[in-house]
Amino acid sequence: MAGCAASLSDFLFAYDTPRIVLIRSRKVGLINRGVQLVILTYVIGWVFIWEKGYQEIDSVVSSTTTKVKGVALTNTSDLGLRIWDVADCVIPAQQENSLFVMTNMITTLDQRQGTCAELPSAKTECKSDDDCPFSSSDVHSSGVTTGRCVNYNAHVKTCEVMAWCPVENDLYVPRPALLKATENFTILVKNHIWYPKFNFTKRNVLPNINTSYLNSCNYDAKTNPYCPIFRLGQIVESAGQNFQQMAVKGGIMGIQIKWNCNLDLAASHCLPKYSFRRLDNQDLSHTVSPGYNFRFAKFYKDANGTEIRTLIKAYGIRFDIIVFGKAGKFDIFPTMVNVGSGLALFGVTTVLCDIIVLYFMKKRFYYREKKYKYVEDYEQVILQMSKLKQRALNHLPRITQLVSV
Amino acid sequence: MAGCAASLSDFLFAYDTPRIVLIRSRKVGLINRGVQLVILTYVIGWVFIWEKGYQEIDSVVSSTTTKVKGVALTNTSDLGLRIWDVADCVIPAQQENSLFVMTNMITTLDQRQGTCAELPSAKTECKSDDDCPFSSSDVHSSGVTTGRCVNYNAHVKTCEVMAWCPVENDLYVPRPALLKATENFTILVKNHIWYPKFNFTKRNVLPNINTSYLNSCNYDAKTNPYCPIFRLGQIVESAGQNFQQMAVKGGIMGIQIKWNCNLDLAASHCLPKYSFRRLDNQDLSHTVSPGYNFRFAKFYKDANGTEIRTLIKAYGIRFDIIVFGKAGKFDIFPTMVNVGSGLALFGVTTVLCDIIVLYFMKKRFYYREKKYKYVEDYEQVILQMSKLKQRALNHLPRITQLVSV
Amino acid sequence: MAGCAASLSDFLFAYDTPRIVLIRSRKVGLINRGVQLVILTYVIGWVFIWEKGYQEIDSVVSSTTTKVKGVALTNTSDLGLRIWDVADCVIPAQQENSLFVMTNMITTLDQRQGTCAELPSAKTECKSDDDCPFSSSDVHSSGVTTGRCVNYNAHVKTCEVMAWCPVENDLYVPRPALLKATENFTILVKNHIWYPKFNFTKRNVLPNINTSYLNSCNYDAKTNPYCPIFRLGQIVESAGQNFQQMAVKGGIMGIQIKWNCNLDLAASHCLPKYSFRRLDNQDLSHTVSPGYNFRFAKFYKDANGTEIRTLIKAYGIRFDIIVFGKAGKFDIFPTMVNVGSGLALFGVTTVLCDIIVLYFMKKRFYYREKKYKYVEDYEQVILQMSKLKQRALNHLPRITQLVSV
Repeated sequence: MAGCAASLSDFLFAYDTPRIVLIRSRKVGLINRGVQLVILTYVIGWVFIWEKGYQEIDSVVSSTTTKVKGVALTNTSDLGLRIWDVADCVIPAQQENSLFVMTNMITTLDQRQGTCAELPSAKTECKSDDDCPFSSSDVHSSGVTTGRCVNYNAHVKTCEVMAWCPVENDLYVPRPALLKATENFTILVKNHIWYPKFNFTKRNVLPNINTSYLNSCNYDAKTNPYCPIFRLGQIVESAGQNFQQMAVKGGIMGIQIKWNCNLDLAASHCLPKYSFRRLDNQDLSHTVSPGYNFRFAKFYKDANGTEIRTLIKAYGIRFDIIVFGKAGKFDIFPTMVNVGSGLALFGVTTVLCDIIVLYFMKKRFYYREKKYKYVEDYEQVILQMSKLKQRALNHLPRITQLVSV
Repeated sequence: MAGCAASLSDFLFAYDTPRIVLIRSRKVGLINRGVQLVILTYVIGWVFIWEKGYQEIDSVVSSTTTKVKGVALTNTSDLGLRIWDVADCVIPAQQENSLFVMTNMITTLDQRQGTCAELPSAKTECKSDDDCPFSSSDVHSSGVTTGRCVNYNAHVKTCEVMAWCPVENDLYVPRPALLKATENFTILVKNHIWYPKFNFTKRNVLPNINTSYLNSCNYDAKTNPYCPIFRLGQIVESAGQNFQQMAVKGGIMGIQIKWNCNLDLAASHCLPKYSFRRLDNQDLSHTVSPGYNFRFAKFYKDANGTEIRTLIKAYGIRFDIIVFGKAGKFDIFPTMVNVGSGLALFGVTTVLCDIIVLYFMKKRFYYREKKYKYVEDYEQVILQMSKLKQRALNHLPRITQLVSV
Repeated sequence: MAGCAASLSDFLFAYDTPRIVLIRSRKVGLINRGVQLVILTYVIGWVFIWEKGYQEIDSVVSSTTTKVKGVALTNTSDLGLRIWDVADCVIPAQQENSLFVMTNMITTLDQRQGTCAELPSAKTECKSDDDCPFSSSDVHSSGVTTGRCVNYNAHVKTCEVMAWCPVENDLYVPRPALLKATENFTILVKNHIWYPKFNFTKRNVLPNINTSYLNSCNYDAKTNPYCPIFRLGQIVESAGQNFQQMAVKGGIMGIQIKWNCNLDLAASHCLPKYSFRRLDNQDLSHTVSPGYNFRFAKFYKDANGTEIRTLIKAYGIRFDIIVFGKAGKFDIFPTMVNVGSGLALFGVTTVLCDIIVLYFMKKRFYYREKKYKYVEDYEQVILQMSKLKQRALNHLPRITQLVSV
């Protein structure tokens, strides 16, 4: 009990600190301070200032809405003079982070369930019924074969299929794009972001933007960098693409909104940064379904109640709104982790200088002797001491003799 | 060769440890142990217990489905008595992480392609054909001008446009919202989450929830916090908003599901936490397209096969399901990083106490002498020693004289 | 001033390094080197090679498009022989990261606004008008009650509702699934990824894939792991499920694309890895709306201009494309943090070996004496010295006496 208390008091009231050799030398001193300066500069400059190592980081959570405006006029033999507004061109009417604007199309009017000649291709052309299998279809078919060989037109016979008839002919895509006027359509992007860790929210319609500005502005990287209204043509051009060329076969555009925020500063410094990029493969060597298109149908009933449909192969540009970014805010936890790492790096100084001083300097043996205390293994010491003792004893007579003189 | 072996044996069989001054002093000892205690508390308490620094972290991957139920009745002059069910109100019928429920609408029946008077506004009103440009349109137009000035009604003349006629008049939004009964609709949210790093999956329909409970329950933060069925009205109220007010112009609601899981515990402790937030700008100073709406059309054909459409400007509430969270599980890698940092911080104790002991205590010179061993630069030492020797030599005659006395 | 300069020169030209006891002992030396080896192995092997601690990490940003191909034939009493193509089966026609393929359905033809008998259930069956409330509805109703009790069929009477009539009867789901042929439909998934921090982009249609390969290939984990075309049946089977069974009630499948890239290697090593998982709850004990379905309607007008609709309860498989992954690239910042932590861990060696040497070895007192220098509190020292002095003074007469002898 008493021993325990003594141990505790020993533990509590003792302070141990390493014994230090302080070498007063210009050369070694300067090397030492130099290395320390480099590490200090790294820790403060890079870790704390550049990488903001004192900040807790959070990723953005985002919610986006879009609204398209504009009107386009077409004049085709099928449809005559026709106006296309947003309800015609934006399909589906609303999506979460995405928006499709139709720029070109192949319309197949008044399809009915029935049998008709398949679209000619190496696989479907035939001379007689023997060339046509019965009740077969593959992923490229318009329908299921009936086993008959019928006229597709005056020159070509193809296998008959049970399908929505007449089958769509999408071999020729209109050029220029039918809805080329969509270049002047505008998108209003409303983006609401949230950093859950800091409970920080912000919108891309900034508080200092007023209604009249919003009614008239158009995004421009230089003059209106915070206007959330984008002209379609300009988005495509900003990504280094040609709108009219892209409109023919469609494509995917990324509207990137970057929210990199330093929340140690005022909230007003947290601003969106827009950029634009083409996301689909415009590489000419890949011609399997290049661009972007999909098919949809409008269903009607005729006077007899039979279902008919208009099939539309819609080519167009899908705008994906990609919101990303990181917010940082001072937090004691990453600060301490980085201070700890930084301190550990200071240990490198001593290691480096020790190597220089103890291995490369001329007077290394002198310094080594000062730094190190060599302790032999206890057994070895005992052995040597006993040897010395023995030798001393051997000499004892002589010593006694000398002393007694 | 032998030298090399000797070096290796020197390296292998040597153990170097710093020499320590152990100062037995109550004051310094207590300061030392106090600082160590603070750092130990920080490392264990904050890094390991609070921030769970011993855990590997992964972000959630989520998949969501929703199902709305309910029925609403309206009575308008245009449409008469009409029932609205889910197939009428939810547009599009399904989305991935989002869900739109129509709460209000402006319906323009039987639009046809043709020419008619544009909606009156400062820009479109006219006195004669001279006021109307030919074939012009901007993003706010309903169509392309024909250059004629025609009667919009008995009092106002506007420029004629080629458009879907009659043009939509959206100046007056129905108040209260037509589909105000959607307040009592319910959403069933099925959410499946996955932490890829730990291959851990879970669903928000918990294993202990049975079918009869699911058929009857309604989410309530206090009484039914794990029921995945939400009444629309209650979602809006939980976010501190008024449903009927929001229903008029629409808006965006976030249904946030937070999955913060400590996977070192049993899987049953990993539970969803729901919260609700309004995401759009309800700020009254921003009146550019406040709320949330979009236009879509239903297409029909009349007896002659001419396409007609019903244009609907749908106001409503979009519910964005935002799933977020982090899972942590013990992992040796972050543990070691944090242990390393923690140990490095212990070095701070020595630095701090050394500063106190060596610079601020009364007996600092005494302690300094014990801690430091001053080593002069070798050259300096040689120099001083030769000086001393010279001085000794200078004094030699006198010393000899003294001794010889 | 001069003092300040002296201090500065003292600071600049001094190098302090701990004094070391170097113990030459086989046992202790081997323990020491052993522990150091373990830590070195951990730091290099685990932190740097396994966890790639020298890399900056970024999360993937992704954009996806899908295209379905195929055709299915059904023969039902309601609809007769009918062909279903992609425009019929994929609803909505396009989504961002998701894709719904209808596999089964309950069709209610020619619904009109009106009054009719509600679907029989415990709640809706009645004997007389007294059993039926007026103008009531709940979330499970098809419409709003009129207060009358009418014949549902020859045997059952139910409360009349104002609704889209006739009401849908979804008690019997077609088995096998009507569109069971969708098993052979294919999806082409085009995925474009981006690592913003490294400005690295890649597509899942790899540069070495040519058009003819894309036209004919089908994904197979072993033979065609980079073909981006998937047969629906195979996706479901790869997840260990049965397509025909799943087709009846629908479900959610995850198509997971993992992009784990080491950007220190060539870009061609950054490859997608596909995997498949069922995301909905196929647990038999949870029978509340199992599988996946939603309702949508096709709207028509009859000859009189009255709106009629075909309500479709669509059962089907939703394919969620889940893209995830991390890219790493060498960066000095995490490297230094990890080097710092690693170095700090080396400090553990000394602590461990000191404990062994100073507390557990036989000759611990010998080593302790070498390592530590005990310094008493200054006051204590002074006190003891003065005591000694006093004692010396006390003995002085006797000593003088002795000496003088």
